[in-house]
Amino acid sequence: MGKGFASDNNAGIHPEILKAIADANGEHVTGYGNDAYTDKAVGLFREHFGGDTEVSFVFNGTGANVVGLSALTRSYHAVICAETAHIQMDECGAPEKFLGCKLLPVASGDGKLTPESVARYLHGFDFEHHAQPRVISISQVTEMGTVYTPEEIRSLADLAHHHGMYLHLDGARISNAAVSLGLPFRAFTRDCGVDVVSFGGTKNGMMLGEAVLIFDPAMAREIKYLRKQSMQLFSKMRFVSAQFIAYLEKEIWKKNAEHANKMAVLLEQEIRKIPQIRITQKVEANGVFAVVPRHIIQPLQEKFFFYLWNEELPEVRWMTSFDTTESEIRDFAALIRSLL
Amino acid sequence: MGKGFASDNNAGIHPEILKAIADANGEHVTGYGNDAYTDKAVGLFREHFGGDTEVSFVFNGTGANVVGLSALTRSYHAVICAETAHIQMDECGAPEKFLGCKLLPVASGDGKLTPESVARYLHGFDFEHHAQPRVISISQVTEMGTVYTPEEIRSLADLAHHHGMYLHLDGARISNAAVSLGLPFRAFTRDCGVDVVSFGGTKNGMMLGEAVLIFDPAMAREIKYLRKQSMQLFSKMRFVSAQFIAYLEKEIWKKNAEHANKMAVLLEQEIRKIPQIRITQKVEANGVFAVVPRHIIQPLQEKFFFYLWNEELPEVRWMTSFDTTESEIRDFAALIRSLL
Amino acid sequence: MGKGFASDNNAGIHPEILKAIADANGEHVTGYGNDAYTDKAVGLFREHFGGDTEVSFVFNGTGANVVGLSALTRSYHAVICAETAHIQMDECGAPEKFLGCKLLPVASGDGKLTPESVARYLHGFDFEHHAQPRVISISQVTEMGTVYTPEEIRSLADLAHHHGMYLHLDGARISNAAVSLGLPFRAFTRDCGVDVVSFGGTKNGMMLGEAVLIFDPAMAREIKYLRKQSMQLFSKMRFVSAQFIAYLEKEIWKKNAEHANKMAVLLEQEIRKIPQIRITQKVEANGVFAVVPRHIIQPLQEKFFFYLWNEELPEVRWMTSFDTTESEIRDFAALIRSLL
Amino acid sequence: MGKGFASDNNAGIHPEILKAIADANGEHVTGYGNDAYTDKAVGLFREHFGGDTEVSFVFNGTGANVVGLSALTRSYHAVICAETAHIQMDECGAPEKFLGCKLLPVASGDGKLTPESVARYLHGFDFEHHAQPRVISISQVTEMGTVYTPEEIRSLADLAHHHGMYLHLDGARISNAAVSLGLPFRAFTRDCGVDVVSFGGTKNGMMLGEAVLIFDPAMAREIKYLRKQSMQLFSKMRFVSAQFIAYLEKEIWKKNAEHANKMAVLLEQEIRKIPQIRITQKVEANGVFAVVPRHIIQPLQEKFFFYLWNEELPEVRWMTSFDTTESEIRDFAALIRSLL
Repeated sequence: MGKGFASDNNAGIHPEILKAIADANGEHVTGYGNDAYTDKAVGLFREHFGGDTEVSFVFNGTGANVVGLSALTRSYHAVICAETAHIQMDECGAPEKFLGCKLLPVASGDGKLTPESVARYLHGFDFEHHAQPRVISISQVTEMGTVYTPEEIRSLADLAHHHGMYLHLDGARISNAAVSLGLPFRAFTRDCGVDVVSFGGTKNGMMLGEAVLIFDPAMAREIKYLRKQSMQLFSKMRFVSAQFIAYLEKEIWKKNAEHANKMAVLLEQEIRKIPQIRITQKVEANGVFAVVPRHIIQPLQEKFFFYLWNEELPEVRWMTSFDTTESEIRDFAALIRSLL
Repeated sequence: MGKGFASDNNAGIHPEILKAIADANGEHVTGYGNDAYTDKAVGLFREHFGGDTEVSFVFNGTGANVVGLSALTRSYHAVICAETAHIQMDECGAPEKFLGCKLLPVASGDGKLTPESVARYLHGFDFEHHAQPRVISISQVTEMGTVYTPEEIRSLADLAHHHGMYLHLDGARISNAAVSLGLPFRAFTRDCGVDVVSFGGTKNGMMLGEAVLIFDPAMAREIKYLRKQSMQLFSKMRFVSAQFIAYLEKEIWKKNAEHANKMAVLLEQEIRKIPQIRITQKVEANGVFAVVPRHIIQPLQEKFFFYLWNEELPEVRWMTSFDTTESEIRDFAALIRSLL
Repeated sequence: MGKGFASDNNAGIHPEILKAIADANGEHVTGYGNDAYTDKAVGLFREHFGGDTEVSFVFNGTGANVVGLSALTRSYHAVICAETAHIQMDECGAPEKFLGCKLLPVASGDGKLTPESVARYLHGFDFEHHAQPRVISISQVTEMGTVYTPEEIRSLADLAHHHGMYLHLDGARISNAAVSLGLPFRAFTRDCGVDVVSFGGTKNGMMLGEAVLIFDPAMAREIKYLRKQSMQLFSKMRFVSAQFIAYLEKEIWKKNAEHANKMAVLLEQEIRKIPQIRITQKVEANGVFAVVPRHIIQPLQEKFFFYLWNEELPEVRWMTSFDTTESEIRDFAALIRSLL
Repeated sequence: MGKGFASDNNAGIHPEILKAIADANGEHVTGYGNDAYTDKAVGLFREHFGGDTEVSFVFNGTGANVVGLSALTRSYHAVICAETAHIQMDECGAPEKFLGCKLLPVASGDGKLTPESVARYLHGFDFEHHAQPRVISISQVTEMGTVYTPEEIRSLADLAHHHGMYLHLDGARISNAAVSLGLPFRAFTRDCGVDVVSFGGTKNGMMLGEAVLIFDPAMAREIKYLRKQSMQLFSKMRFVSAQFIAYLEKEIWKKNAEHANKMAVLLEQEIRKIPQIRITQKVEANGVFAVVPRHIIQPLQEKFFFYLWNEELPEVRWMTSFDTTESEIRDFAALIRSLL
């Protein structure tokens, strides 16, 4: 299999990240995060997000979302999210299982929530028959490849806080969002009122590793137990921490996301030249969604694997990643043209 | 920090394992285990455990135990284990949380269960007020460094099956047990009636990675969902699979465990020469337990970190690992002597 | 407070039901359902629903739904229901908490599901990232006072079974439905392919008591443990069983539901004479939904309590019960007229 | 079946309690506890336990224990209890399932915990690998028929609070304890430092009904949601409240418990006259435990049903209740003599 456009998860490890793992190998260090690598990685996150940020590394995105939400909820709470959200569609019910909470899905064409679309669920407060709305959870980048503006995030945070609720941000592709907005991480998260962030590394060139970021220390008091009980505590933690050190210190997050986003723009440009294909979402990060003639899907997938997003239209999703090349995109566009 | 004897978790990655990760890097492969590395790794496990073994890779030992037990239980079941078992003592209640089951701890001097010690919990069957005994869970190597004989395991499996129950084996240190017994893995697990194994890699030289092994395909039907919902599905799975390929194919499991066990024997020999120290458990794998004079603990820990096991006695635990050296052990013994 | 139209839950106990409780008092009987009252009550249910029906009495409607669904699901499953369903709106997340399952709400004007409206969730089978669709859950009578025809139920059962799924029926008001349809219970449940029924007694004149009915004995094997672990096992069971004996044997279910439904029709007739009020749902059982001028709501509630259903329209819900009187309805209509 | 000595659960409803249910019947009242009966019943509890006591009525004892403990715990906590405790032995794992917590059983000959016996579990604080000890849970009366002195309770409360933990009291038979001690409820609960009480009514003459009592309002903030989500909220609440009104106002709790305890003393006296039977526990409430010749058990059970407590000895449990008569006891003793 070549690279294809299936998922940024299908890419490997960026060479500098791999080197960081190798460089951290050697002596014994205390397990479970009581080590100098982890201290340093946490410090780097605090440079980006503020000195009192509680940073908890976990294995994967589902783990980050569930552990982060567990700091904000008890089982009688409800979490409002887009119906396309990873926590709703792609985690096999892990949030319901671990949190005991109800997820309230909101229809959304572009993957975003708005104060207006969320409003339908903002009732039943103090009424014990009703799962209590507690968290609004957004994805930045959204699962539809779109990016919230800081103002959009601020309006959701204000709404949440007005109701005594919290704003959670699933940042599996947060670096792509930062690059897209041209803003530091903090400017569209903490500074906009986000309470908890799932900060993703895996989809942008790390081997594995995500971070749960909690900005209010009072909310973070139980996080170490919640992480352990949710099976997300890594014994040889240094090997995630070392990756994050390289990722942040050498700005690999930025280089990789810039490249992936740029490749998505190029892909969009090439595709827009093909009249039989209709791009369905704004291309703001590293994903391109398009409605394509059905007969080209299978032959195209044989050479460049990707996923069908909506079988009925049919709509496809093409993801670029840190190692996508221009020539791949041009070959892909050429193949499409030859199939039409 | 030098190496110390704190935990085999504190060691790093065996060089050949690290190389296997690097070698698996490069092209895109499908995520979540649909890749050639995973196919090959699964095949290697099947060579050891039988062709119909269902193999599910997970991140860590707690994950392996919980996911494996989830295949055997519903929430009204009970799991009988030693009171020293990892699932009872070291997983922050993850089994209760995820499974909903009751854990029934059995007092055990050497970390082992016996048909006699388990018998006290084998009642209340069919009585709905009583959490139904469903699984006997043993650790091989035990948390006390001892190793079950195949006969001991067989007797527990027979007892479990006689009552319509199952036998689970927490093999976080299964390679050390295999080496200790001089037997293939299968001879003291599947062939003795064990139903589900947590096969550990992390403590014996891997970066991370454990495998849930289920021998009856009928029990494994739901495992892929249970693994995903328990947040134990790795997107870039190839990097665990590649480690296991090297681990099994190049017999790193064996070399590492042989070395660690040998170092434990050497440590035992050195310690037995010191009359003020009393070794409290048989040294059958890579752990040495000993009651030591209280005043030497802190100065000793400053040079060679290790954990206090039982504060009252005081009893300490010294673990060797794949990279423990003879000179370390001799230095350690010399330091003890100088402190006494 | 007079009677009002708030809820059939606000009514008391039908005199013959109360007498049955008193008559069952006296001697000691074995607790937890091992008694002659329970045997008889179970037998009566089997006359209605078939001789192999597994009958489990529980305390309340939420308990019935959760225990019934627990027989059909494991935690990685999803339950499709109307967004107005009791399990979605009125149980404070008890299904998610106890089952661990995801609930998938379907928009529905009249409280009913259809094969078309359910279809959007019938995908992702065998895909482990996706909570697996397992149950379609309908309410009969719906929360909007409408009643499914047997054909409508059959079409949903067929759809469910076609996908290896099950059909659950929340029958908190099942007697009102039976009377509305003029059919025996079985004709619109088991005979239409329903797999599990929550059979309600509380809202139709009992003090408390619901029954979980499972038609396939294989699905019922674990039900006694699931009921106990969900805290729904009544020690002095005879006092629920005795109520159900009277309820079924003396056809109190029928008399009460006939009366309540008749009163709803009368209420509808009276209301339809008032042009400023618009009835919003078909009146097929014992509930009347209507959009009313906002200014009359509060003065009306002071004399006859009822609930606001939709604050924005504003839409109100008026429920009749077994003890609603014609004169109450006429007084109510007269008061409305005087307020307009 | 006659009355027997199986369980106080096998008795019926005290006539004055039944009358209270009947008297509360009639008009409509708001459901779920927003009614004058519930207000009055809560007020009566506050007279006994203090004006700021949060009182939550639930269906059954398992519900009371689980809901009460849910106010004190999150899932990573552990609850220490006697190995004979109802929460450990008789609730089918409901605490683990609903709370997600680990239960830590303590061996106890007489059903009581002591600071010494509990101490073995008071470690691992702040260590995330360890389920955090959070609650000591005692039963008063214990499951072995013994009664804690206020001093014994105080010493456990002090120990719990010293460690930042809480003391929970399972008072399924709290009235028998009050009568046995000759003290008001408060004197051996709240005044001794107990934080949460499960106050039982069912075993002492009520039809059904238990109360969760929380003395610190800060701990009670979430209780209404936790009760609802645990399926323990009764719609027609007035019928539990009315029972508690009669129970407390007319001192039925006292009369019934005095009678039952007195009957146990009489039974003890009669049994002590029979040399072949050995009473194994102090008779301090309404239970008598005894080792009896094996051959008399079955013929005895045919006339007077009771439970075998420990099959090996064999030890039996005889419970008296509010309606046990002197003649029954004398007949029972006579039958035993005739069988020996």
